[in-house]
Amino acid sequence: MSAEKKIRVGITHGDINGIGYEIILKTLSEPMIAELCTPVLYGSSRIATYYRKGMGIEQVPFKLIKGAEDIVTGQNNLIEVLSDDIKVAPGEESKEAGMAAYISLNRAVNDLKNGMIDVLVTAPINKNAIQNENFNFAGHTEYLASEFGDGDKPLMILFNDAIKVALVTTHLPISEVAQAITKERVIEKLQILNDTLRQDFGLTRPRIAVLSLNPHAGENGLLGKEEENIIIPAIKAAEDQKIMCFGPFASDGFFGSEQYKHFDAVLAMYHDQGLAPFKTIAMQSGVNFTAGLKYIRTSPDHGTGFDIAGKNEASEESLREAIYKAIDLYRNRVRSQEAYSNPLRKQYYDKSNDNVVLDLTKDDDDNE
Amino acid sequence: MSAEKKIRVGITHGDINGIGYEIILKTLSEPMIAELCTPVLYGSSRIATYYRKGMGIEQVPFKLIKGAEDIVTGQNNLIEVLSDDIKVAPGEESKEAGMAAYISLNRAVNDLKNGMIDVLVTAPINKNAIQNENFNFAGHTEYLASEFGDGDKPLMILFNDAIKVALVTTHLPISEVAQAITKERVIEKLQILNDTLRQDFGLTRPRIAVLSLNPHAGENGLLGKEEENIIIPAIKAAEDQKIMCFGPFASDGFFGSEQYKHFDAVLAMYHDQGLAPFKTIAMQSGVNFTAGLKYIRTSPDHGTGFDIAGKNEASEESLREAIYKAIDLYRNRVRSQEAYSNPLRKQYYDKSNDNVVLDLTKDDDDNE
Repeated sequence: MSAEKKIRVGITHGDINGIGYEIILKTLSEPMIAELCTPVLYGSSRIATYYRKGMGIEQVPFKLIKGAEDIVTGQNNLIEVLSDDIKVAPGEESKEAGMAAYISLNRAVNDLKNGMIDVLVTAPINKNAIQNENFNFAGHTEYLASEFGDGDKPLMILFNDAIKVALVTTHLPISEVAQAITKERVIEKLQILNDTLRQDFGLTRPRIAVLSLNPHAGENGLLGKEEENIIIPAIKAAEDQKIMCFGPFASDGFFGSEQYKHFDAVLAMYHDQGLAPFKTIAMQSGVNFTAGLKYIRTSPDHGTGFDIAGKNEASEESLREAIYKAIDLYRNRVRSQEAYSNPLRKQYYDKSNDNVVLDLTKDDDDNE
Repeated sequence: MSAEKKIRVGITHGDINGIGYEIILKTLSEPMIAELCTPVLYGSSRIATYYRKGMGIEQVPFKLIKGAEDIVTGQNNLIEVLSDDIKVAPGEESKEAGMAAYISLNRAVNDLKNGMIDVLVTAPINKNAIQNENFNFAGHTEYLASEFGDGDKPLMILFNDAIKVALVTTHLPISEVAQAITKERVIEKLQILNDTLRQDFGLTRPRIAVLSLNPHAGENGLLGKEEENIIIPAIKAAEDQKIMCFGPFASDGFFGSEQYKHFDAVLAMYHDQGLAPFKTIAMQSGVNFTAGLKYIRTSPDHGTGFDIAGKNEASEESLREAIYKAIDLYRNRVRSQEAYSNPLRKQYYDKSNDNVVLDLTKDDDDNE
């Protein structure tokens, strides 16, 4: 990657009846964004105009283009993805709006795969409205894992500058959470988390805190056996793979006593356990990152906001942060790949003994 | 209650290998406490001395007494409840320490029932160590509900001056949570919560927010059916009983956007969902209150702290708040009972019409 080249940030419009256009327009109205990167909105100029006028917000300069081959560096690009007129009804769930969200996402994903854009930032979708014969997933994360293929497993991470929270299970009813927590899955998520912390966040020896599944960390089996039978063995197995992980911690005490400040990331067992305290801490600044996949994808950490859609009340802070963080993550990953693409042979490394002399004649197969 | 009489606050020592004595000694070393109320510690002067010397904290004046009949107003009282020497091992789980916790709790509960003390403040127990033939409960809350009898159902509330969070289910493994959420139970907890907000917190028309069970409030059934089948019907039924309740809200967005500030209390479906964000907000100042029972019982919102026991690192803030809040709750309840003990006949009340004349000849059976 040349230092001069601006990163092309694909942006989907999400559900067109939600706050997507509002936060996109507010974000891209700042000239700084198109100086920092090349934004490419997969959307509709007519819908953008509809929201802009309805909310009385200022005009945003867009270069209207037909496809990614026409992208202009240093400007806001808008690829028209909707051919027909579509009814916009702020705050209403509709199949039409869901289909418009899908078309935008599908086009952006194809361009990502073809190398026409570098990273993907998605505006929120309505998980019901978007369901169609091509989209039968609980959310973006699951869809992207399927699209990007290669068998890579996704890991949902919410983060800001103060805290990173990853989830073992994501969009699952509570009744299905306990049975979805397996030793293999916890280990797998720890591996992905460790890898992304090193590769995408640039941390050399990340420290990971693992939360318990049950209240009071199971209280030695009195309030659930999964800690003893699954989580503790998973932590030990991950430690054997040189992953620095600790726990399991009871989530209420862990967040209440600010223990999260002593770790680089937190692995929570399920959605609300991780995200309720995360959002309490992060407020508007949280960003959702789908780690573990071939491409960088971020999104704001909130939903479609149907209750405030079209009212000019939404904060664009999380979307703006999602763009900034996508750029950071992409740069870190490229740097990491360049750094490790042609490695020196690994030299002697041991953390506990310092009385051993370096032996460069020895073979070393450990590709840590 | 005479205005002059000081409220007698029974304090249990909890697990003697935890931070109980440390936070009790630190709290009672402030002369202000014994000016405000009459503290009665159910404990051991020898163990108190052991911790005081070990941690190098200042001597706390205690009036050593044999039983509650000897309580001295305006002083720190210590009822010696342990006859034998007991081994103290800070940070260790032991049956001996659990039995000592039980003896303290049992004595205090008996005195509460006999009217010798007015309120109960409990130091943390280890839920494993305390189990014995007389104590087979998941925690204080469940034990007290059984002891105070009358069929009253307890409601666990965590609160500070900014937020109150009540729980539908408490000390339950996650695998058992979904099946424990029933319409009847949600309605029952809403009733108890509404009653305690009016009676013990002095709120005339409390507004209650109800959280969803599943992530994203079930996303219209895509992520779980309990919202549609159980929680929404329960909210409607409670509304029919003139309880002002709203929701269900997805917990992450609810706390992240600070919606809790618009409500007098939050009803969470399970332990970590309510307590992780609560403790993130409340930090050290949270107090646990067992509502719905005949007597007022509060406790600090943390555990035994075995990892820091005997190290003089524990904060006494939550215990001190637990004492203050127990006094407030007791006063509110007494005031409420006096106010409603001999009521005027209820007069005309309607919230929507103001064109109706008062008809004092009409019977009114609605004992709201």
